[in-house]
Amino acid sequence: MNGADSLVQTLLDGGVDVCFTNPGTSEMHFVAALDRHHDMRCILGLQENVVTGAADGYARMLDKPASTLLHTGPGLANGFANLHNAKRAFVPIINIVGDHATHHLKYDSPLTSDIEGIAAPVSGWFRTSQSPTEVASDAAEAIQFANTAPGNISTLILPANTAWGDANGPAVTKAAPTPQTPGDERIRAVAEVIRSGEPVLVLAANRALRDDAMELLSKITTSDSVDLLAQQSNGRIERGAGRVAMDRVRYPVDQALDQLSKYKHVILVAAKNPVAFFAYPNKPSLMMPEGTGVHKLVAREEDVMGALDALIDELGVGKNNAKVSDKFLPPMPTGSLNQDVISLVLANMIPENAIISDESVSTGRRFFEDSYGSNPHSWIQVTGGAIGNGLPLATGAAIACPDRPVISLQADGSGMYTLQSLWTQAREGSNITTLIFSNRKYQILLGEMAGVGVLNPGPKAMDMMELDRPALDWVALAKGMGVDGGVATNATELAKQMERGLTCEGPYLIEVIF
Amino acid sequence: MNGADSLVQTLLDGGVDVCFTNPGTSEMHFVAALDRHHDMRCILGLQENVVTGAADGYARMLDKPASTLLHTGPGLANGFANLHNAKRAFVPIINIVGDHATHHLKYDSPLTSDIEGIAAPVSGWFRTSQSPTEVASDAAEAIQFANTAPGNISTLILPANTAWGDANGPAVTKAAPTPQTPGDERIRAVAEVIRSGEPVLVLAANRALRDDAMELLSKITTSDSVDLLAQQSNGRIERGAGRVAMDRVRYPVDQALDQLSKYKHVILVAAKNPVAFFAYPNKPSLMMPEGTGVHKLVAREEDVMGALDALIDELGVGKNNAKVSDKFLPPMPTGSLNQDVISLVLANMIPENAIISDESVSTGRRFFEDSYGSNPHSWIQVTGGAIGNGLPLATGAAIACPDRPVISLQADGSGMYTLQSLWTQAREGSNITTLIFSNRKYQILLGEMAGVGVLNPGPKAMDMMELDRPALDWVALAKGMGVDGGVATNATELAKQMERGLTCEGPYLIEVIF
Repeated sequence: MNGADSLVQTLLDGGVDVCFTNPGTSEMHFVAALDRHHDMRCILGLQENVVTGAADGYARMLDKPASTLLHTGPGLANGFANLHNAKRAFVPIINIVGDHATHHLKYDSPLTSDIEGIAAPVSGWFRTSQSPTEVASDAAEAIQFANTAPGNISTLILPANTAWGDANGPAVTKAAPTPQTPGDERIRAVAEVIRSGEPVLVLAANRALRDDAMELLSKITTSDSVDLLAQQSNGRIERGAGRVAMDRVRYPVDQALDQLSKYKHVILVAAKNPVAFFAYPNKPSLMMPEGTGVHKLVAREEDVMGALDALIDELGVGKNNAKVSDKFLPPMPTGSLNQDVISLVLANMIPENAIISDESVSTGRRFFEDSYGSNPHSWIQVTGGAIGNGLPLATGAAIACPDRPVISLQADGSGMYTLQSLWTQAREGSNITTLIFSNRKYQILLGEMAGVGVLNPGPKAMDMMELDRPALDWVALAKGMGVDGGVATNATELAKQMERGLTCEGPYLIEVIF
Repeated sequence: MNGADSLVQTLLDGGVDVCFTNPGTSEMHFVAALDRHHDMRCILGLQENVVTGAADGYARMLDKPASTLLHTGPGLANGFANLHNAKRAFVPIINIVGDHATHHLKYDSPLTSDIEGIAAPVSGWFRTSQSPTEVASDAAEAIQFANTAPGNISTLILPANTAWGDANGPAVTKAAPTPQTPGDERIRAVAEVIRSGEPVLVLAANRALRDDAMELLSKITTSDSVDLLAQQSNGRIERGAGRVAMDRVRYPVDQALDQLSKYKHVILVAAKNPVAFFAYPNKPSLMMPEGTGVHKLVAREEDVMGALDALIDELGVGKNNAKVSDKFLPPMPTGSLNQDVISLVLANMIPENAIISDESVSTGRRFFEDSYGSNPHSWIQVTGGAIGNGLPLATGAAIACPDRPVISLQADGSGMYTLQSLWTQAREGSNITTLIFSNRKYQILLGEMAGVGVLNPGPKAMDMMELDRPALDWVALAKGMGVDGGVATNATELAKQMERGLTCEGPYLIEVIF
């Protein structure tokens, strides 16, 4: 058994049985080892940011890590942006990054780079294996760290000779440490704030947005003085009919300041004190009013369910009074498309148990409010602001949950970053309906330009924010990668196209032109 | 004048008048400043590896830097791979990377990342500007460093508030230090090796591959015992009729070992002792025979032309006997396509003064030998092994040299990494004819897999190296980005399609299916 075999067997024994790959020469022994282990499923991506983003989408849905296979430093760098998003979503991922044989590095051949340097900003744990006999134990440590709450990125750098040399066999992965439950003092302090009658915001994120946790959260908001919100960017939220209706902190700073202005306290449930996504001249970075009391109930790496149970006991509120949304669909619109109409069509069309990958950016700001009563669905979004996340997330989510329909809401500008995802969707026959919101501009930048005080951008600036010269033909792009598609320019066409996408075999793409 | 204006004016005063951009929110003031300075040309790329690769192609053709505009850490990371290639080509580039306002960083908002950490592995110089009044002088230093021989990458990180705050005006860029000429001792030692009559290889790279330098090099190879080669990966070589015929060190290790086995000495002219691109079990890393005498004539950061002049003086060889290729075209082939036929068609079709961007990978291994007598052309290639370099290089070269026809030789697998380049080519109306070598596999990996000793890859391994499920339709992909195209499946069609591409307005793409 060589080092590569010991690695693959350690991954499988540790519960990691999917590998999203974009291999190169230095990974050939690892690829051969993948081939010999039939339990390991391999999914090829044609660019690494597809690979890492798909691993993120997979982990968000299953709360367990996939592995990735990346080719040396530039391959890791190509996948960096979606690792950044994954890091901000606190999901587990095990990256395997091939490198030159250790004895070859000193010659500084053209593809040599500082892989650890590239890995460091996005990896909670990283290590370069030093010999074939250490690969398995390094991998076991990588898995254990990835599985440690709230979920982490581990990057194992695999010099070619540690893959091809003789190893001793696989290593056993230790269980991740059990998350700690907050002490009574914190629980009592938070209960006191809730009982105070002063306006309180309970801000939830991460593990607190799974449906069981949201049900508990809804029980502590029985008083009118206590409101519940999710933070602005979240790895996954369970939504729709039968779930607790959870709004988010708004993205535009002025709206967020307005939304949060009335609170005297914020209680953090696996969340952090809300900050503006970007800084703007003469606007604050912190979104809560000055002087807000900030109270941590539970940190994201702690036992969120235990903390919520303890708080409910302390408050003595009923165990069976979760406030969940009724099934409710807004009237189906007709006529030409705009953001509101698109949102209403979508709210009507979400199938039971769907997964929605949302990188709709400016187009999607209204989806949340229209879809509280839609069919129940999981909602995943770009978390770290690194665009090009949506199509890969959808790709990975479909691998994780092959029996669930996936709807991918994708802005055109950010969709172009990782359009190669469509090919993987076609190869895997994934049940994904992609809506490309083809407004043919970086619409968000036009708003942001005004937001930073530039009110009259000139023609050259506009040229850097408009994508209409030439217009992208997304149906042709999809066809080029083996994905069938169509165009929608009004509400009726959109509904019809969505029906087609949701019922056809394999992926389908709708260019939504408005 | 704000910091952003002072930066743009400093760039212009320092001779940097093109900016390849992919902006985001934190760069809005910089975009507004670009807009106000009419001498700065802005070229939008839809993904950052297009942006950085185009800046590389631009610099390779003009030997002067363009600037890039990238959005925070993930934006820089997206462009990292082609910066790695640019670093290995020793070209100058000035990256401007936007970041959050300095006062906002401590809140760790979702897009916050360690930008300096990402910049370090690919930047000879990097700095985060600390105030709007320092931006201009930081930029001047960045330009000076980029222009220092042999050419370097500078990365200036621009927090949003240093762009929007008040500055004092532009700064003056100091001239780069003059490269040093090697001392007489080195010249005399090399002359002695050449005179020894023992088999000597003169290995050239970087500045030594410009046509004036190659002419000088050809004069010192008057004896049969002295051969001339370029290193395996090179930023640019001037080739074709009227130029010195310069072969390269082979990529496959066994071929390189065979090619170099006869030499007792290697003389390095702005080159380094040749090493294998990758390590393989039981094969050496160094390509020269054991015991080879290694003699440095001139380092890449020194005065290459001065060193060659001095060596010629020392050798007393004629000043007017450069050995250049005659015009010679191989017979135009007919019939079905294979690597040889493609190479022969191409050798016939290269127009006068063309630029050839070569990321043909496995398909292109024969182009060199067939095209020594073709029309004179500049040849640029992927230098750092980070694939996805070819289409961006062609894009940037066409911006640098709008009056020269560009031929982009592109393998399909690596072309998919940065296919977004085609949109920029369409927007700019660039005179680029792209040949996609559509063998529908990572052909090089099939060879490499055998090279590392894996002789019978199984179906899962094959699945990670074959791109035929589904087949990519490159003409559809091109159409999706506004580029016209056609298919060639035999030699006659290929010649006809090339004729069409070379004569039509703007870019054209040929899917070469074989």
